[in-house]
Amino acid sequence: MKPSTISELLKQDFTLQEVDIKGWVRTFRANRFIALNDGSSLQNIQCVVDFENTDENILKRITTGAAVHIKGELAESQGKGQSVEIKVSSIEILGDSDPETYPIQPKKHSFEFLRENAHLRTRTSTFSAVMRLRSALSYAIHKYFNENGFFYVHTPIITGSDAEGAGEMFRVTNLDAKNPPLTEDGNVNFAEDFFGKETNLTVSGQLEAETYAMSLGKVYTFGPTFRAENSNTSRHLSEFWMIEPEVAFMDLAGNMDLAEDFMKSVINYVLENNFEDLEFLDQRLQDEDKKKPQAERSELTLIEKLRFVVDNNFKRVSYTEAIDILRNSKPNKKKKFKYIINEWGADLQSEHERFLVEKHFKCPVILFDYPANIKAFYMRLNEDGKTVRAMDILFPGIGEIVGGAQREERLEVLKQKMAVLGLDEEELWWYLDLRKYGSAVHSGFGLGFERLVMFATGMSNIRDVIPFPRTPQNAEF
Amino acid sequence: MKPSTISELLKQDFTLQEVDIKGWVRTFRANRFIALNDGSSLQNIQCVVDFENTDENILKRITTGAAVHIKGELAESQGKGQSVEIKVSSIEILGDSDPETYPIQPKKHSFEFLRENAHLRTRTSTFSAVMRLRSALSYAIHKYFNENGFFYVHTPIITGSDAEGAGEMFRVTNLDAKNPPLTEDGNVNFAEDFFGKETNLTVSGQLEAETYAMSLGKVYTFGPTFRAENSNTSRHLSEFWMIEPEVAFMDLAGNMDLAEDFMKSVINYVLENNFEDLEFLDQRLQDEDKKKPQAERSELTLIEKLRFVVDNNFKRVSYTEAIDILRNSKPNKKKKFKYIINEWGADLQSEHERFLVEKHFKCPVILFDYPANIKAFYMRLNEDGKTVRAMDILFPGIGEIVGGAQREERLEVLKQKMAVLGLDEEELWWYLDLRKYGSAVHSGFGLGFERLVMFATGMSNIRDVIPFPRTPQNAEF
Repeated sequence: MKPSTISELLKQDFTLQEVDIKGWVRTFRANRFIALNDGSSLQNIQCVVDFENTDENILKRITTGAAVHIKGELAESQGKGQSVEIKVSSIEILGDSDPETYPIQPKKHSFEFLRENAHLRTRTSTFSAVMRLRSALSYAIHKYFNENGFFYVHTPIITGSDAEGAGEMFRVTNLDAKNPPLTEDGNVNFAEDFFGKETNLTVSGQLEAETYAMSLGKVYTFGPTFRAENSNTSRHLSEFWMIEPEVAFMDLAGNMDLAEDFMKSVINYVLENNFEDLEFLDQRLQDEDKKKPQAERSELTLIEKLRFVVDNNFKRVSYTEAIDILRNSKPNKKKKFKYIINEWGADLQSEHERFLVEKHFKCPVILFDYPANIKAFYMRLNEDGKTVRAMDILFPGIGEIVGGAQREERLEVLKQKMAVLGLDEEELWWYLDLRKYGSAVHSGFGLGFERLVMFATGMSNIRDVIPFPRTPQNAEF
Repeated sequence: MKPSTISELLKQDFTLQEVDIKGWVRTFRANRFIALNDGSSLQNIQCVVDFENTDENILKRITTGAAVHIKGELAESQGKGQSVEIKVSSIEILGDSDPETYPIQPKKHSFEFLRENAHLRTRTSTFSAVMRLRSALSYAIHKYFNENGFFYVHTPIITGSDAEGAGEMFRVTNLDAKNPPLTEDGNVNFAEDFFGKETNLTVSGQLEAETYAMSLGKVYTFGPTFRAENSNTSRHLSEFWMIEPEVAFMDLAGNMDLAEDFMKSVINYVLENNFEDLEFLDQRLQDEDKKKPQAERSELTLIEKLRFVVDNNFKRVSYTEAIDILRNSKPNKKKKFKYIINEWGADLQSEHERFLVEKHFKCPVILFDYPANIKAFYMRLNEDGKTVRAMDILFPGIGEIVGGAQREERLEVLKQKMAVLGLDEEELWWYLDLRKYGSAVHSGFGLGFERLVMFATGMSNIRDVIPFPRTPQNAEF
């Protein structure tokens, strides 16, 4: 079959053939050289126009952003940095692009500006590389789970439960916004709402995924989740995608094995399949780094960071051990940490996590057996009565990337924990049923997909790794 | 590696080895034979208990639904219908299941009852088969697109746009439900809502997907979409998953080629990879059919229906031709159709679509070039000024399964159509930008994922092909 995309065309190892290709003009210089891109690859292909024999009105319309249809002959390139080029025999303008108003000029734009033009930003090399990587990582995730006997479960987005407890929720409603129906005692009558009760957007699919693990064995979710927190930071989104595997008969040690194997596998996938895009982003970061003072530069390049994860065993360290290490560490003693670690029970911050990974162990770290009172109600209580079988995976540059746990499988212990937190047994009747009928040890973890994309692309603002970010005050597009 | 699931174990071609396996008891008969299932496969494995040497208290706890850990030796089976069985050397009860209260008894339950126990229904053969197939179809979709150079795009779930026009929307808010803030003129002040304006749950990712097609070339979405319509039918959900590919430089003919190849590929995937589950569901349907009067029985079995799609070319027929065929058809003349087709311009119903597929052409059908006024504003107007380059794919037993179109790429024509419908140009500025800067022919289609799962599993109620269905008055679990 004839290649129809630039990606296909550049994979060919023969030249001198007729080609027929469509794409968008990135640049046009010397009235002669079109850098053409069609999104299939980071690479542009150079198209050489015979300007002496081309209508001047056509030449004028070859502007940045214009869509063109080019026919010609593939030839070895005379220029640097490319092996082949197209000698154009015919060019048709499919769609013009007014160079006076087209937002994506052939120059460096700020990421803030490009966010305001999120509908066009994938026409830049950086964002097309990021979004191709996002797609490849998604595929790597589905592929990993499929090859390892997991079933994909679509847990519900609209939930009637407010017991998930992972954060503030958005209400989903179609009651009249101004004059909602009221009950006799003057409260909003949610019984008249669409679902007959108050409903929200999910913050996690885990509890529902557990029901499927306890019947199908190995399952995972990969879907959108929501937080209505007013966090305007470079690490938070109101809408983001999450991956949550859940496995019956698996304990915390198995959970750690799974998470390590999984993370290595998906990162290895992009190293093997998307190296060109990674190299480009790596170079971009190195160029950025050169502008910074020495002290702020990264110790590892992007690709080194990815290899750091793939090539190292993840060090498994109990929370208690980690606290000892941190308490006795230089930055703690010299008060270089923003949050000084004084005693067991403290919640770790990103600075502590990064210290453990980057300075102390020099490898990815899995912390486990956290204090019960800083973790969720459904985590398996240890025999010590004060820690739970939770684990967090810590990565360089980013800190926590995965959080997981063995789940509390004992009905009475779970009920006690719910009672302490004031969670309603009636509402979670189905979750409790799993502990009544054929309960067993089971475990799982959650990975915020955008955190993974940030790690794999080196992008530092989470708004730049999702197509159309939703954040407080912003739901454009 | 030692097999740890029943699926892995049954793939082994040797016997007489030590096995160590965990699962749930489906049945226990004659104080001796456990049918054990772990969800990895439709198959149970028979575990033979040496009851004379097993503690009576343990034997009593081997009840339907109990989780057990079994060690033993794999041996050729003496029984019918299975090649291997496990001679149990040790059995441990991991989690009891009270036979008096466990909802999933070893008998036939109605689907209505099982819907009320959706957290346990995948412990039945039918629902575990359906959900394994749902997972396999998801994977087949990602695999197809990945292998064909498409990038996966996560379009936003929360949208500030109400111009998608595909149906009623749910509002997403965190304003006070009872006393929302008001503007000076007494309306709800959505400027104070989380996103600074009124927001809803998306009904389609197509418009956003178009922005990515017009930069990355070939893209697809696969995510949840929502309809706030009060439709309590066996074909409608308030929350469902949709697949929407979108391709730059592709016209309607290319769109039909893509859709046909795609549908054949994903159905072929489950025929090749999930035949056991398909056979089980096929048999189930045949058994159901036998209870019906002759006239209501299916002409094709489930597997025959799937092969009908894979083995036949999809017949391409213009809407105008189809109307002629229908107008002159026997059921139309004899008034057997519920909706009689009298003239060009009529919207086709499922009965007409099925007639074309099942009676007239006897193959899947693609109808194209529909009247403009029964289709969406963004579809490409034909030169006749009255039809648009839309296409619907019709399948046996179900009617329309895919709907797609070439998109209107001409700025002025699009603006005129929006004006007629009263759609705000300001709101869709980014969508119009695609027609201002490097516009080109492009096309795509939408596939309701649950429709595909219904078709591939033969399930007749859409609530039975999604884990936790959301419908009017119901958001349980």
